[in-house]
Amino acid sequence: MKIALIGAFGHQGYVVNGVREMPDCEITAVAVGEKGEDVSKLIPGIKGIKGTEPRVYEDWREMLDKEKPFAVGVSPMYCNHQKISVECLKRGIHVMCEKPVAMNMDELAELKEVYGKSDAEFVGMHAMRYQANFRAAHDAVKAGLIGRPILMNSQKSYAFSLQRPQFYKERSKFGGTICWVAVHALDWTYWVMGGFKSIYAAHSRIGNMGYGDCESSGVIAFTFSDGGQGCINFDFLKASTDKIAQDRCRIAGEKGVIEVYDKRAFIVTHDAELRELELKPEESFFKAFIKSIKGEGDCLLNAEDTFEVTRLALLARDSADKDILIKT
Amino acid sequence: MKIALIGAFGHQGYVVNGVREMPDCEITAVAVGEKGEDVSKLIPGIKGIKGTEPRVYEDWREMLDKEKPFAVGVSPMYCNHQKISVECLKRGIHVMCEKPVAMNMDELAELKEVYGKSDAEFVGMHAMRYQANFRAAHDAVKAGLIGRPILMNSQKSYAFSLQRPQFYKERSKFGGTICWVAVHALDWTYWVMGGFKSIYAAHSRIGNMGYGDCESSGVIAFTFSDGGQGCINFDFLKASTDKIAQDRCRIAGEKGVIEVYDKRAFIVTHDAELRELELKPEESFFKAFIKSIKGEGDCLLNAEDTFEVTRLALLARDSADKDILIKT
Repeated sequence: MKIALIGAFGHQGYVVNGVREMPDCEITAVAVGEKGEDVSKLIPGIKGIKGTEPRVYEDWREMLDKEKPFAVGVSPMYCNHQKISVECLKRGIHVMCEKPVAMNMDELAELKEVYGKSDAEFVGMHAMRYQANFRAAHDAVKAGLIGRPILMNSQKSYAFSLQRPQFYKERSKFGGTICWVAVHALDWTYWVMGGFKSIYAAHSRIGNMGYGDCESSGVIAFTFSDGGQGCINFDFLKASTDKIAQDRCRIAGEKGVIEVYDKRAFIVTHDAELRELELKPEESFFKAFIKSIKGEGDCLLNAEDTFEVTRLALLARDSADKDILIKT
Repeated sequence: MKIALIGAFGHQGYVVNGVREMPDCEITAVAVGEKGEDVSKLIPGIKGIKGTEPRVYEDWREMLDKEKPFAVGVSPMYCNHQKISVECLKRGIHVMCEKPVAMNMDELAELKEVYGKSDAEFVGMHAMRYQANFRAAHDAVKAGLIGRPILMNSQKSYAFSLQRPQFYKERSKFGGTICWVAVHALDWTYWVMGGFKSIYAAHSRIGNMGYGDCESSGVIAFTFSDGGQGCINFDFLKASTDKIAQDRCRIAGEKGVIEVYDKRAFIVTHDAELRELELKPEESFFKAFIKSIKGEGDCLLNAEDTFEVTRLALLARDSADKDILIKT
């Protein structure tokens, strides 16, 4: 099956690594997301797979129409995510798209509408569901190990540097730190706890290394439709010398607490002392996505999840921009 | 100097342990906070200090008038905190009072007014400023080790059990979990970051072991007057087998991150890898309070701090009760 890539920002690695594991897949083409984008850094990785030499296109529409790929990894400058995804879906081409999949509610509505009319599948790159520690925490909650979960708080912390793309400086191109960083934590929270009832968020640009609109940090607090509440703190303030994975979550329930910390997951309950949760071998997100399309298994994330988590992120961004509480 | 205790709930241990370290102080009297309260559990600890046998009073007003103590530790059922503190201050007796020092804004306003007219000093039992790890984190921020602090998030987690006093079931007697548990985190946040601009909070009673009004858990998100933002997650859901101290905070700044975790404090910056902050020997909060009254040193907390942190907790409680955002 022919797989193509559009754009070289973000996490095309998920797609490339997935193709590596699938004997019947090949990356046959790479297109720039917009004029002047350099996609050359992707080529060596692709050539490493079965010696494939992908065709490089300066026009992604031309690539779609000529190559007719089975599926596309979409990861150009973030403001182009929705437009390209829509064109793929209209052509019946399956899409795995970098987040945020829409820059505003209008884009999200159009994307949902086009998806509804398309036979193609769509999913956002909320890949942390496939990270072994978060998956173990999720599965332990669903297995009832801490009883009813009540309180869930998370941290998503990235390091910043002056090497980040220049478009991070503009909200209209980058989308904001809530939609790029905190959205991962919104996704895993939604996965574990279900829908949100109220959202309040705050963010600031202090310490953003001169990156204009780009928020350095923020917080989101929320209540869940099924009861209970949670919060997220997110930032680009991770120290450059910090060797600990700073993506964390803690889920406190009626019978105990589960924590994800530094690539591991732990549980402590009223009945049993602290122990580490066993992690399953990590699976490829893209491979699971393709297999689910072929009816050979389930993917941990689908289009509806992607749309809802994107909506939550856009609501949180709006709450933070306006300093208002939003009932969802 | 004569020190007295009123009530045996909460943290009278701060007072008893402080007196132990002061040769010129003695606990001469103990009074019940209200009819039928059992204060006998305090007596063995007090008798251990210089063999003092305190007089026990069934009426705390009578005790105040007869004993005329220099200072009083006030820790009865929580709804009696303000009333007793007001009476002490009116008599010119210094007070260290368990939190919350007021159950609502009216009580807080009266307490502030009475304090303003009194020559006596007043402080709430926000003792975590004297816990060596939180103090080290505070001092490191103030020394500029992480540059400007921007994002501060905290956790306060207590274990619950059916042994908790029955009055926790009633909001009018207990005050709510924000005012009893989260208020510590509000205090150390205010200490490090200064005043708050916006507050949103949520709490719930799920999993509260049948304790009526008592909230099992919640979150508070806020922005700071000086810029930046933070959040707190708090709960009574600590697993009974958990041996790790679950009071934590993380302060992310322009130059690095400081964390308090399990009785220790750590720093990691863009310039230097993770290292542990040195902890000073722990000082007695009550002793520092008495010394500050005598002009022999500063106390890390004063009446104004206590009033402001109480106000923030009451605003947060109101936000959570009504699901509204509050501009302070």
